[in-house]
Amino acid sequence: MNQPVVLISLESPHSFWRLSSEHERALSAAFPGLEFRRATEEEVPHQLADAHVYFGWRFAPSWLFAAPHLRWIASPAAGTDHLPVAEAHSVGVALTRSYGFHGRPMAEHAMGLVLGFSRGLFISQRVQRNRAWWKDDLAEEFFDLAGATMTIVGCGSVGRHLAQAARAFGMNVIGVRRTPPAASESGITWVHTTAVHQAVSVADVVVNLLPATPDTHRYFDHDLFSACKPRSLFLNLGRAATVDQSALLASLDTGHLRGAALDVFDPKPLPARHPLRLHPRVVLTPKSSVFCRAYMDEAVAFFADNLHRYLSGQPLNGLAEAPATRSPLVGG
Amino acid sequence: MNQPVVLISLESPHSFWRLSSEHERALSAAFPGLEFRRATEEEVPHQLADAHVYFGWRFAPSWLFAAPHLRWIASPAAGTDHLPVAEAHSVGVALTRSYGFHGRPMAEHAMGLVLGFSRGLFISQRVQRNRAWWKDDLAEEFFDLAGATMTIVGCGSVGRHLAQAARAFGMNVIGVRRTPPAASESGITWVHTTAVHQAVSVADVVVNLLPATPDTHRYFDHDLFSACKPRSLFLNLGRAATVDQSALLASLDTGHLRGAALDVFDPKPLPARHPLRLHPRVVLTPKSSVFCRAYMDEAVAFFADNLHRYLSGQPLNGLAEAPATRSPLVGG
Repeated sequence: MNQPVVLISLESPHSFWRLSSEHERALSAAFPGLEFRRATEEEVPHQLADAHVYFGWRFAPSWLFAAPHLRWIASPAAGTDHLPVAEAHSVGVALTRSYGFHGRPMAEHAMGLVLGFSRGLFISQRVQRNRAWWKDDLAEEFFDLAGATMTIVGCGSVGRHLAQAARAFGMNVIGVRRTPPAASESGITWVHTTAVHQAVSVADVVVNLLPATPDTHRYFDHDLFSACKPRSLFLNLGRAATVDQSALLASLDTGHLRGAALDVFDPKPLPARHPLRLHPRVVLTPKSSVFCRAYMDEAVAFFADNLHRYLSGQPLNGLAEAPATRSPLVGG
Repeated sequence: MNQPVVLISLESPHSFWRLSSEHERALSAAFPGLEFRRATEEEVPHQLADAHVYFGWRFAPSWLFAAPHLRWIASPAAGTDHLPVAEAHSVGVALTRSYGFHGRPMAEHAMGLVLGFSRGLFISQRVQRNRAWWKDDLAEEFFDLAGATMTIVGCGSVGRHLAQAARAFGMNVIGVRRTPPAASESGITWVHTTAVHQAVSVADVVVNLLPATPDTHRYFDHDLFSACKPRSLFLNLGRAATVDQSALLASLDTGHLRGAALDVFDPKPLPARHPLRLHPRVVLTPKSSVFCRAYMDEAVAFFADNLHRYLSGQPLNGLAEAPATRSPLVGG
C-alpha cells in the first residue's frame, strides 16, 4: 500500500528560503506515515501525478491538470496573489498561505525605515561625503517618534507586530481594517475602512500593508494621498498594485509627503531612470522586508501544524478565499 | 531687599534647544521669590555679578572670576566634558548635568542606525540609483535583531532606555558598567568593566556610550576592536575621544567590523576627504542623536526640580564629580 505523498518544492537563491535537509528529516520523523519527496520547479509537473499535498513557493495554474490526487497546496508565503486561488478553488483543492511569522522581520524593516527618516539617517548618509556639516538641515527635518501617530492600513497579523514595535517607541497606533475587532486590543485604535481618510489625516506615518485584490487596486490614489497629514511619511510594505505611483510621486513633489519608503513597486525592478529611483526623498528596498534568517524554520513549523490538521480532518489555517469573497483589508 | 538672581543663557540656532517665553513664564510663576534674567552668551560675564544660579549651555572657566555670589552652574546637557568641572569644584561652585530625558531620542537614533544596517537600508539607499537589483546583496548582508545580542558599554540612564528598545525587538542586552547593579534589572545582563572584552566578543552590535574622562581616553583601541565578534556592528553615540579612530578604520577595512555608525568623531566636522566620511560601511550623523523636539521642556522640568532642591537645601541631582574621582562608566 502506498503512503500518501507530500511533494515539496522550496528552491531559492537564498538559504533562508530553502528547505534544509534538517527540515526534511524533521518532517519525515514527525510524519512517519507520509512520503516526502523533493522536486525542482521543473520536476514539479511530473511529480504531481502521485502527490496529495504540495508545499512550495510557486504553483502554475496548468499544474492542476497534472495532479489528480492533489487536495492541498501549501505556500510558505504570506500573500496569495501569485497563486492560482480561483483555479484551485474551482477544482476543490485547498490553498493555504502562511502567517504569524512575517510580522517580526517586517516590523524591524518598517521601524528601520521610519527611524531612517525621523532621525535624518538617510539624509546623513546621502550628504556625509559632500557636505561639510548638516546639523542645521537635520534640526529642521527630524521628528520624535514618541507621541507621533502611525496609521496602519490593512492591519492584520503583520500590522499587529508593527504596532507593538511602534508602541515601544511611544507612538500612537491606528489600525484600519474592513473588520476591526470589537474591543480595543494591544493599544491599537481600530478604525473601519470607511474612515480611512480620517485615519490617515492624523498620522505622521502611514504604513500600507494591504494585500493585492480587485478591491484594493490603486487604493492609495490621489484622493487618499491628499487626505494624508501634510509632511507625513508613507511606507508600502504590502503590494505595489495597491498604490497609484503617479499620485504618490505628485504628493512627494509638492512636498505634501515628507518622504516614502517602498519595499514594493511596479515594475520590479523599476527602470533605471524611473523618478521613484531618483527621488531624493524616496528609499527603495528590493522586497526585502520579509527577509528573515529563521524564515524556513517558521514556515516548516506552520506547515507541520497544518499537516496535523489535514491528517486529522480539522480545518486548515490560512485558507485563501476565492477572490470574489475574500476580505481585502486583512493584511498580514 | 534683592531677590536671588537666576541667570539663564540658553541660546541655540535650534528652537528645541532654546528657552521659550513660555518656559520663562513657567519658571517665574513656579518660583516667585527668585528673579530670572536672560542673557546672551556675550552678556553672561557682565550679568554674572549678581547671579546666584546659572542655567545655560556654556560656561567659560574665566567667568568664575566675575561671579562672586554664584553657587550653582546648571547645564541642560548630559555631558560635562565641555564645562569647567574642576575649576568650579575648586571654588565651591556646584555644577550639575541633566539626565533622564536624553535616553528616548538617543534610543530612537541608535535603533534607527542598527536597523539601517541590519535590514540593509543604508545599502539600499546607496545603490537604488545605479544598480538594477540588489536583493541578492541584501540577502547576504542582513541580520535578524530577534535573538541577536547588543552590548552597551557605559550603560547608564541612556543605555537603559536603549536596552528597553532593543529588547522590544527581541535582542539580548549586555550592559557594561564600572558599577553594575547587584541584581538583574530590566532584562539587562550586567557585566563589570573588567569583562568588557568578553562582553563585546559575543555581541552582534556594540554601542559605545562612554563619557569622556581621562580613564576612557581611546578606550576602544585596537585591542578592544579585535576582541569584538567578527562581522559585528559598532555605534558611537558617546564621545569621540573614547575611540581610537585609526583602530576603528583598520577593523572596518579588514572586514572584522560589519560597519560603524558614528554620531561623534574627531575633528568635528571631519575633513572633506577623511576616510571615515568616504567609507562605504560608515554612516555619520552630526551629533544629532540627542535631537528631540521636547528637549527644552524636559531640561526645564529637570532644572525646576533641582531648583526646588537647591532652595530647600537638598542635594542636587546630576552633580558632576571632580575629574579625578568620577566614574568613567556611568554613561547617560
